Amino acid sequence: MIITVIGLGLIGGSIALDLKKANFSEKIIGVDNNPDNCKMALELNIADEIDSLENAVQKADIVIVAIPVNSTEKILFKILDNIKKETIVTDVGSTKENICLAVENHKNRKNFVAGHPIAGTEHSGPKSAFSGLFNNKTGIICDKEKSYDFAIKKIEEIYQILGMKIRYMDSNAHDLHIAYVSHLSHISSFALGATVLDKEKDESTIFDLAGSGFESTVRLAKSSPEMWTPIFQQNKENVSSALEEYIKNLQDFKKHIDNNDYDIIFDFMKSTNEIRRVLDGIKK
Amino acid sequence: MIITVIGLGLIGGSIALDLKKANFSEKIIGVDNNPDNCKMALELNIADEIDSLENAVQKADIVIVAIPVNSTEKILFKILDNIKKETIVTDVGSTKENICLAVENHKNRKNFVAGHPIAGTEHSGPKSAFSGLFNNKTGIICDKEKSYDFAIKKIEEIYQILGMKIRYMDSNAHDLHIAYVSHLSHISSFALGATVLDKEKDESTIFDLAGSGFESTVRLAKSSPEMWTPIFQQNKENVSSALEEYIKNLQDFKKHIDNNDYDIIFDFMKSTNEIRRVLDGIKK
Repeated sequence: MIITVIGLGLIGGSIALDLKKANFSEKIIGVDNNPDNCKMALELNIADEIDSLENAVQKADIVIVAIPVNSTEKILFKILDNIKKETIVTDVGSTKENICLAVENHKNRKNFVAGHPIAGTEHSGPKSAFSGLFNNKTGIICDKEKSYDFAIKKIEEIYQILGMKIRYMDSNAHDLHIAYVSHLSHISSFALGATVLDKEKDESTIFDLAGSGFESTVRLAKSSPEMWTPIFQQNKENVSSALEEYIKNLQDFKKHIDNNDYDIIFDFMKSTNEIRRVLDGIKK
Repeated sequence: MIITVIGLGLIGGSIALDLKKANFSEKIIGVDNNPDNCKMALELNIADEIDSLENAVQKADIVIVAIPVNSTEKILFKILDNIKKETIVTDVGSTKENICLAVENHKNRKNFVAGHPIAGTEHSGPKSAFSGLFNNKTGIICDKEKSYDFAIKKIEEIYQILGMKIRYMDSNAHDLHIAYVSHLSHISSFALGATVLDKEKDESTIFDLAGSGFESTVRLAKSSPEMWTPIFQQNKENVSSALEEYIKNLQDFKKHIDNNDYDIIFDFMKSTNEIRRVLDGIKK
């Protein structure tokens, strides 16, 4: 099985490492706009060879597109133009609706499986890739009925090799839910980091006062703007609604503080403690 | 050295465990309103004996007050009434100004050291206590000049045993900075948890879609309302200002999304990535 991985960063690189480890791939062909990434991917044994997008797609049995979502939207149609009859193409993007719309009417649409293996760290690039990133995480497959069965089965097999639980969802519902459960977290973290950096010109004060609580809440503010700007752009409506509700909750909280309504604040926190049960579920 | 620990939860319990381990204490006397906590503290070897507040204070060489900040504010004056001449009293509260004001004019004010060992987890109660909680964290000592030198030295010794770096600050400045670097993180996390719980009535969706990013951002929403409500109350003005600036940042972010100003969003995230350097500093 020849696998072409387009985008040799954290996600693409980590998938490649796991597929090699499982002897699922006969050869991994890497594609990346950035020559440094290509060089590093060879050194780190993420890719066996590097090729141009066109060549690598033509040679592949499976194409995995692991680049920012706006770039995926742009090149996916062209990729489907160039594949062999039974080549399977999948992506890993954190938004799904626009990507699916971009190839909706392509004659090879059924060769494409819209995927979202939900894992990541705040780091990026080939160096941040590691085997096991996806273990025990969830892999979402969207609009299953629009792909060939053999294609779905092969991507399921890959997700299983990565150690993922598989869930199925409409691309539309995916984008709505992920706005709340993932995209909003990133914005809350970026806004927190900005607020603190802006206030605390003297960084040693942050350094001295920050406990692990601050560190975990602000961790996502280290994430890559190159990756996240297109995500917010593609999921604009849902992200804007989620932000609106989040801001409303914060405004209410502030109002209760300003009005000395501490019983309401207590009850709000008590009921939100419910998240503990949900998070414990995540860990199972 | 007889040490009285008032409040046998995560913080008081963890301090007790470390002081016993270092053979710094001849005896730890525990005080807690909750009989279950007292029983558990004996079982877990956090305290050697349990006594009433009054008895335990009278017997102590050092009194460590590790209860919610509003309760500290209420009983600290009475504690200072009851101590022996050279007894040292310290607290661990996440707010400092009101606590210091409460005993400002006490004849034994100089026996008191206003402290904030900055560490914690989202768990509470004696069972959550563990040796090493404070290792490599920062311990703040406030209004140093208002305490006897021998009292400051002894608390510094304790912080060193706990493995903390020591910093000095005015109680006033402490409360301002900690509003941004700690209290705001907790509110952002509670509001995030509430927004997601409210939207996602079907918890299995949260469970399936939440990556580790959500988990780390929302972790503090598991924190105890009993502890945090009084903190927000005591630090009302600073917390309200910090929240106002945070909400402003989020509103700007939303406006840029709504207006398709993605270049601005990119730049905002890029400059906030600076937090990486600060966080790496925290870890040193």
